[in-house]
Amino acid sequence: MEDGVWSSLSPLDGRYRAANPALWEKFSAYLSEEAYLRYQLEVEVALVEGLAAAGVCPPEAAAEVRAAAREVTPAEVAAEEERTRHNIRALVNCLQRRVSEEARPWVHFTATSADIMDTANALRLRAATREAVQPALLRLELALIRLAEREALTVQIGRTHGQHAVPVTFGYACAVYVDRLGQRIQAVETAARNLRGKLAGAVGAYNAASLFLPDARRFEEEVLGRLGLEPAGAATQIVEPEFVADYLHALVSTFSVLANLADDFRHLQRSEIAEIGEYFDPEQVGSSTMPHKRNPWNLEHVKSLYKEFMPRIVTVYLDQISEHQRDLTNSASSRFTVEVVAGLVLAAERLSGIIERLGLHREHLERNFAQARGSLVAEPLYLCLAAAGHPDAHEAVRRLTLEADRTGRPLLLLLEEHAELAPYAARFTPQQKAVLERPEEYVGLAGRRTFELCNAWRAALGLEGK
Amino acid sequence: MEDGVWSSLSPLDGRYRAANPALWEKFSAYLSEEAYLRYQLEVEVALVEGLAAAGVCPPEAAAEVRAAAREVTPAEVAAEEERTRHNIRALVNCLQRRVSEEARPWVHFTATSADIMDTANALRLRAATREAVQPALLRLELALIRLAEREALTVQIGRTHGQHAVPVTFGYACAVYVDRLGQRIQAVETAARNLRGKLAGAVGAYNAASLFLPDARRFEEEVLGRLGLEPAGAATQIVEPEFVADYLHALVSTFSVLANLADDFRHLQRSEIAEIGEYFDPEQVGSSTMPHKRNPWNLEHVKSLYKEFMPRIVTVYLDQISEHQRDLTNSASSRFTVEVVAGLVLAAERLSGIIERLGLHREHLERNFAQARGSLVAEPLYLCLAAAGHPDAHEAVRRLTLEADRTGRPLLLLLEEHAELAPYAARFTPQQKAVLERPEEYVGLAGRRTFELCNAWRAALGLEGK
Amino acid sequence: MEDGVWSSLSPLDGRYRAANPALWEKFSAYLSEEAYLRYQLEVEVALVEGLAAAGVCPPEAAAEVRAAAREVTPAEVAAEEERTRHNIRALVNCLQRRVSEEARPWVHFTATSADIMDTANALRLRAATREAVQPALLRLELALIRLAEREALTVQIGRTHGQHAVPVTFGYACAVYVDRLGQRIQAVETAARNLRGKLAGAVGAYNAASLFLPDARRFEEEVLGRLGLEPAGAATQIVEPEFVADYLHALVSTFSVLANLADDFRHLQRSEIAEIGEYFDPEQVGSSTMPHKRNPWNLEHVKSLYKEFMPRIVTVYLDQISEHQRDLTNSASSRFTVEVVAGLVLAAERLSGIIERLGLHREHLERNFAQARGSLVAEPLYLCLAAAGHPDAHEAVRRLTLEADRTGRPLLLLLEEHAELAPYAARFTPQQKAVLERPEEYVGLAGRRTFELCNAWRAALGLEGK
Amino acid sequence: MEDGVWSSLSPLDGRYRAANPALWEKFSAYLSEEAYLRYQLEVEVALVEGLAAAGVCPPEAAAEVRAAAREVTPAEVAAEEERTRHNIRALVNCLQRRVSEEARPWVHFTATSADIMDTANALRLRAATREAVQPALLRLELALIRLAEREALTVQIGRTHGQHAVPVTFGYACAVYVDRLGQRIQAVETAARNLRGKLAGAVGAYNAASLFLPDARRFEEEVLGRLGLEPAGAATQIVEPEFVADYLHALVSTFSVLANLADDFRHLQRSEIAEIGEYFDPEQVGSSTMPHKRNPWNLEHVKSLYKEFMPRIVTVYLDQISEHQRDLTNSASSRFTVEVVAGLVLAAERLSGIIERLGLHREHLERNFAQARGSLVAEPLYLCLAAAGHPDAHEAVRRLTLEADRTGRPLLLLLEEHAELAPYAARFTPQQKAVLERPEEYVGLAGRRTFELCNAWRAALGLEGK
Repeated sequence: MEDGVWSSLSPLDGRYRAANPALWEKFSAYLSEEAYLRYQLEVEVALVEGLAAAGVCPPEAAAEVRAAAREVTPAEVAAEEERTRHNIRALVNCLQRRVSEEARPWVHFTATSADIMDTANALRLRAATREAVQPALLRLELALIRLAEREALTVQIGRTHGQHAVPVTFGYACAVYVDRLGQRIQAVETAARNLRGKLAGAVGAYNAASLFLPDARRFEEEVLGRLGLEPAGAATQIVEPEFVADYLHALVSTFSVLANLADDFRHLQRSEIAEIGEYFDPEQVGSSTMPHKRNPWNLEHVKSLYKEFMPRIVTVYLDQISEHQRDLTNSASSRFTVEVVAGLVLAAERLSGIIERLGLHREHLERNFAQARGSLVAEPLYLCLAAAGHPDAHEAVRRLTLEADRTGRPLLLLLEEHAELAPYAARFTPQQKAVLERPEEYVGLAGRRTFELCNAWRAALGLEGK
Repeated sequence: MEDGVWSSLSPLDGRYRAANPALWEKFSAYLSEEAYLRYQLEVEVALVEGLAAAGVCPPEAAAEVRAAAREVTPAEVAAEEERTRHNIRALVNCLQRRVSEEARPWVHFTATSADIMDTANALRLRAATREAVQPALLRLELALIRLAEREALTVQIGRTHGQHAVPVTFGYACAVYVDRLGQRIQAVETAARNLRGKLAGAVGAYNAASLFLPDARRFEEEVLGRLGLEPAGAATQIVEPEFVADYLHALVSTFSVLANLADDFRHLQRSEIAEIGEYFDPEQVGSSTMPHKRNPWNLEHVKSLYKEFMPRIVTVYLDQISEHQRDLTNSASSRFTVEVVAGLVLAAERLSGIIERLGLHREHLERNFAQARGSLVAEPLYLCLAAAGHPDAHEAVRRLTLEADRTGRPLLLLLEEHAELAPYAARFTPQQKAVLERPEEYVGLAGRRTFELCNAWRAALGLEGK
Repeated sequence: MEDGVWSSLSPLDGRYRAANPALWEKFSAYLSEEAYLRYQLEVEVALVEGLAAAGVCPPEAAAEVRAAAREVTPAEVAAEEERTRHNIRALVNCLQRRVSEEARPWVHFTATSADIMDTANALRLRAATREAVQPALLRLELALIRLAEREALTVQIGRTHGQHAVPVTFGYACAVYVDRLGQRIQAVETAARNLRGKLAGAVGAYNAASLFLPDARRFEEEVLGRLGLEPAGAATQIVEPEFVADYLHALVSTFSVLANLADDFRHLQRSEIAEIGEYFDPEQVGSSTMPHKRNPWNLEHVKSLYKEFMPRIVTVYLDQISEHQRDLTNSASSRFTVEVVAGLVLAAERLSGIIERLGLHREHLERNFAQARGSLVAEPLYLCLAAAGHPDAHEAVRRLTLEADRTGRPLLLLLEEHAELAPYAARFTPQQKAVLERPEEYVGLAGRRTFELCNAWRAALGLEGK
Repeated sequence: MEDGVWSSLSPLDGRYRAANPALWEKFSAYLSEEAYLRYQLEVEVALVEGLAAAGVCPPEAAAEVRAAAREVTPAEVAAEEERTRHNIRALVNCLQRRVSEEARPWVHFTATSADIMDTANALRLRAATREAVQPALLRLELALIRLAEREALTVQIGRTHGQHAVPVTFGYACAVYVDRLGQRIQAVETAARNLRGKLAGAVGAYNAASLFLPDARRFEEEVLGRLGLEPAGAATQIVEPEFVADYLHALVSTFSVLANLADDFRHLQRSEIAEIGEYFDPEQVGSSTMPHKRNPWNLEHVKSLYKEFMPRIVTVYLDQISEHQRDLTNSASSRFTVEVVAGLVLAAERLSGIIERLGLHREHLERNFAQARGSLVAEPLYLCLAAAGHPDAHEAVRRLTLEADRTGRPLLLLLEEHAELAPYAARFTPQQKAVLERPEEYVGLAGRRTFELCNAWRAALGLEGK
């Protein structure tokens, strides 16, 4: 295998496979050509078992085909395809070759290639979602929940436009991602469950099956039911492409959430901000030439994966278009969707590793907050003045801010010195005064909402007690 | 206005506006800068009314603001923005200017700009969906249903890879679009309903509101409830971007369905196929130099709109990323989403106009079917042979086809002449023989499924009896 | 006009037009529907003048058509198009209506619509490039050159991965953009000059013209030469689309450079970094609720425009595909390319405004540099040790860095204390020691390269003495 | 290896590799991780040889490093990277381990990782262009030229909007692709030649090198010159990304040309058109269920590859943005550009295979032309009438066409019957009359231009006599 890795063309099967052998075993199990073949065989077996159940063919034929399916290998099918130039015909030939003359006609009976391939595609995407995507996303969600809960009350200066704004807590900043990712996990789940199969024949109208079965639509429902799938509402030669498009949208929009998180945490590691840190192995080298560097390269990697895979949604939309009863211009492109699945898993695992071991530099959180302290009472001050009846409080505070900038003196001091503002200040409640004096208390519901959101998502995703 | 049209930069406000004044009136009502301002004012009014209901400000203040909101004009706000360089502050100033000193502080009280803008954005997209998108899509869906029902039994040669395959009915080919579009209409509806507002303040933690209200989250729910909206699960300065991303995916994936339909009908108008025709005005010119041309330019226009608007989904995904409590790098890009909404409506209306007046050239449908007649029994023949026990029916028929090609003789005739095949043929049922002799009967459930699908979608979308 | 602005659908013709009336006058002059019509009329005139020169039609006909072209209005053509449903036929009718019966046949003689439209498109894109794009890019380039020259020697800590690395000068950081933008300006120029016209008729084979002219290819060259254009090497009904695709690539790749610059300068304004500042009008409001905010919203706007327009390149590639002698599926999409042109100009003008008035916070540049001072000698130290013969210098310094982190003591001090390192240190040259002690001198060729690059680009772009 | 193929994730390293072992050997040689490592080693060797030439290090060191570089294996570097988490440091360690203590310090001396990686990237893309891309494109170009020349005079009905227009020759239709592809081959060549390397150190300012070399810029030029490269005009840590972006644009815009060709030829194979045919192996199966099918699946595959790879240009533009002296968010994404290179080669080879064996169904070319014969004189008739002085010839012919449609009678007959048109017809020249009667002569310069274009491109690309 090793040589294969280094001679691979795709970084996925080269560099990244070499670095993550365990993950790639999973990918191979669900997303490789070999895995695809297994699912196709599963569909062929379900079909002939359905035919037997419907009395069209003898039960022995079904049993023979099931046994044969266990023996077919990818290399054998490939060799046959080399001859026939048709992948499903090759598969069928390999099955037929292994069964009796009596069973042979019932292999693939009434089906068209796309029946097998589209149905197998739904099966493998569902399985990959269940076994690889959702575990990776749930791992990340749990890491985020724990981090949010742990830091629910850790005050952090909020930043809008890269500028200090008013305070949040670090936990709340994480809780927003808990909510966003939680929703995406549900969106992925919904879309994966909604993937459909088909057994409607060459042009979707059950032409062939209707020659032998009284209700070919019901037969389709029955066979797909054996595989845990529903049929598409209608089909041409292929399943309506919207189910896969919805699924890919769910994946890609999840990827954006991960990229946003990676960007945020990357910027929080800037030398001047330095509020958080990736765990750094003592053996690890930051730069080939600058031995002191500690680079957020894992987060950068996540963002980079996003840049690679996000634009591929365009292919998915283009593949929604297939002329008449189908063209085959999705033959290659649709094969690459598995890469997007893998890319998302890769990014989620990488992020989880960081979040699970994330360290906070609390002294820098405090330093950065302190830097903002002087000016961040501007907002509550404006509101308290307004509530106290000042008719133009925003403008008054804006001017006060400019003065504070110019003179370097604290806002509250300036407030007291302004004769026209003092009367309003006198009306402030003790709680309002407290916030104006200790702006770290100006965090609104940050703590409470953090716990509410974490609890809600633990419950919704079955993560209680973890 | 007219001069404005011709000097416009965007084709949307130039050429297409000039050609569709009625449609543009609708777009202006929901999607223009003016419309956006109206919705922002609506949010400001709801906020102050909520404050009054919560006992934070006097009810008179709310009444004054409501009255003032009716008078503010876009030009006035623009002039104020020219001074302040801040659009929502400008809006607030215009409101404050119109109310008493007592009411003034309560305008925009505790809100941040994004509270107003994001909530107004949800309102306008919902309204545009209800008033423009869904009517246009439903018009198209109904046109497709009627066409599908009318032609449910009209036999057409099915085409895969642009090659004659086995028969469908033209109605069934339309019914597949009825199903795909029906599903997309529901997806658009779901996504539009799920658009959210927010009133969570500058960093999403209800910092400001919590100074004056016992439960700022409940207050948010109450105020948004007045507008028919729910709050986002969590917010930074802005609403979580996934709600808009889902909505745009729904629009763009719908656009793909329209593009596919346009492509199909365009190819069916090729000179050599000519099964359908766009209605052609006697005054209309097909080419500036070839007076005989009848071009499917409306369908081409639909495909072209798709090519323009589909890639814009990339912008939407990029806009899912906003640093920390928000950056403003969606300031311009998010304003262009209204163009995608309009583009889809434009395409749907154009398609409806074609479908509602679509003519079939039945003689060409028959001619094209006849061309395929000789070979299209290949599939049922293979299946009947297989069912009759032939162990390698597909291969036998494939060879027979090559022979038919070479000799120009009909398949069924060749069948009878082949001694090794004749015994199987003897076992064919009368129904099977009928299909082999009259391949136009080899349409499976095409007719039945057409009616089932049309009925189901009429019911699901409230189109019964239309 | 004002009402038109607020009721516009596109932000380009609404909000942005209102804010930039002068810029929009330019856009209208080159990129509007009206402008397009003017260029189409210019092509029709050149054609008939070419026919006259070739002796095919009388010179009086050409004179009449030239006079008529001056009078045709967009509204008139639109009204005619309403009737004919064909834009170029409408234009031709409007011209013919104004000339004598004798001149009438020669209007548009032997041309197909695409001859006129594609040629006019090349003309308007070239003119817009010359009059709007290049002036805007050159303004920005000059602003960057001046800034780079001014700050050529201003030491700044270099940042890789958002982490302090080794020093550059701020001027050099700008000079890299001088070089990147300079190259893009040349790429835009090359691509614009390479835009082509055509007069090859309905299918590109000069069918019509060859009936009346001895060498229709030469005639095409002659007529296009009157307009300053060359013909495409070959044509179908339309000009080969690669010329426009290359032009759009030049624009979009330029946009990426602007976006990169905007990102850089945006991050340098982060509260904790604060090395530079956008000029801030005293009247300007930073936040509707946080009166103290100074947001880099102009830079955010530039990035946002990039996110809107960059993905549109996908449309351009899709429009490279046109079936057989052409389909019309670029009818709408190709009309939107003018928006990309305008978007780039908008972004460049916005950036220029910032760069021309950019202020440096020198105390923060020094503060940030000082923060890195302790560790940034790691790289030169490693190299000097290596040059002095240390066999594993990188590893030695990496360990030293960890020790410095742990103990908080300066690297150079630790160096002296390590017995195994001291002998190597003794071999350092005085210049090397100087850099190790005053790391602000460790800037390599930053200053020299800045001046070299600025000089080279001033010369290449005709910006000497400005 | 075989198992690796089937367990691969990417279709490139699975299905497509299995089907094209020879092509994949080439890809592995230039585009695999192993190949990348080879080029990195080449750069390290050139660097130390440059140092020796500059007198910085002893020539023996250079010789040792060159020898060591020959022995380093990918597996060894990967194992070392596992420990250091840094790919280039791992490479350097593997080299240093093999050389004497004296040589060790000079390995990678003054370089930063990106110096090695970006330079190696330019080398491998250039080599892949020279060895894989250009041969594949030239093979296709030659196949097109031969086909164009062979069929230069074969009359074909031209098609615009999928509708019969006026005639071309099949050769001319191919010659347009000869011209488009020829231009793209030159664009790819230009962009590949313009790929740049760098040796400017950690932040692009030659900080490190300047400590040991009098003119570090000249040193960079000298070392890169050994590799046949020029340096970028300026650099941060990385080479300016525009060189790669231009290269990828050249590839992707070439891909669009191939996709257009594939679409055209695919549609010409439609059952109703059937003017051309892919060569079909007698063993080949067209459909798993419809034994008679002959599908243009190779052409569909080309279009599908285009749909997969074209959108990846978005990644390239996003990778133009790298913060400050660089972020690493292109770490993964930039590794995937090799897939686009391979995808284009794959598509070109597939297309060449088709074109080289393309068969024309001449009887169908004639049948389709005959179908159009009646109406296609409309254009020349209008022009001849106009030239003969008819003041409204286009309208006259348009009406005549409608009449011909309605009555089914030939245009020319109707012409003679119309009293008001007959006088003009009397003025037609014999040559004009000939074209009106034998519309297959109405092909303009199609034949001549075909030969001119083919000759020109044979000359420009060194394909004379092939």
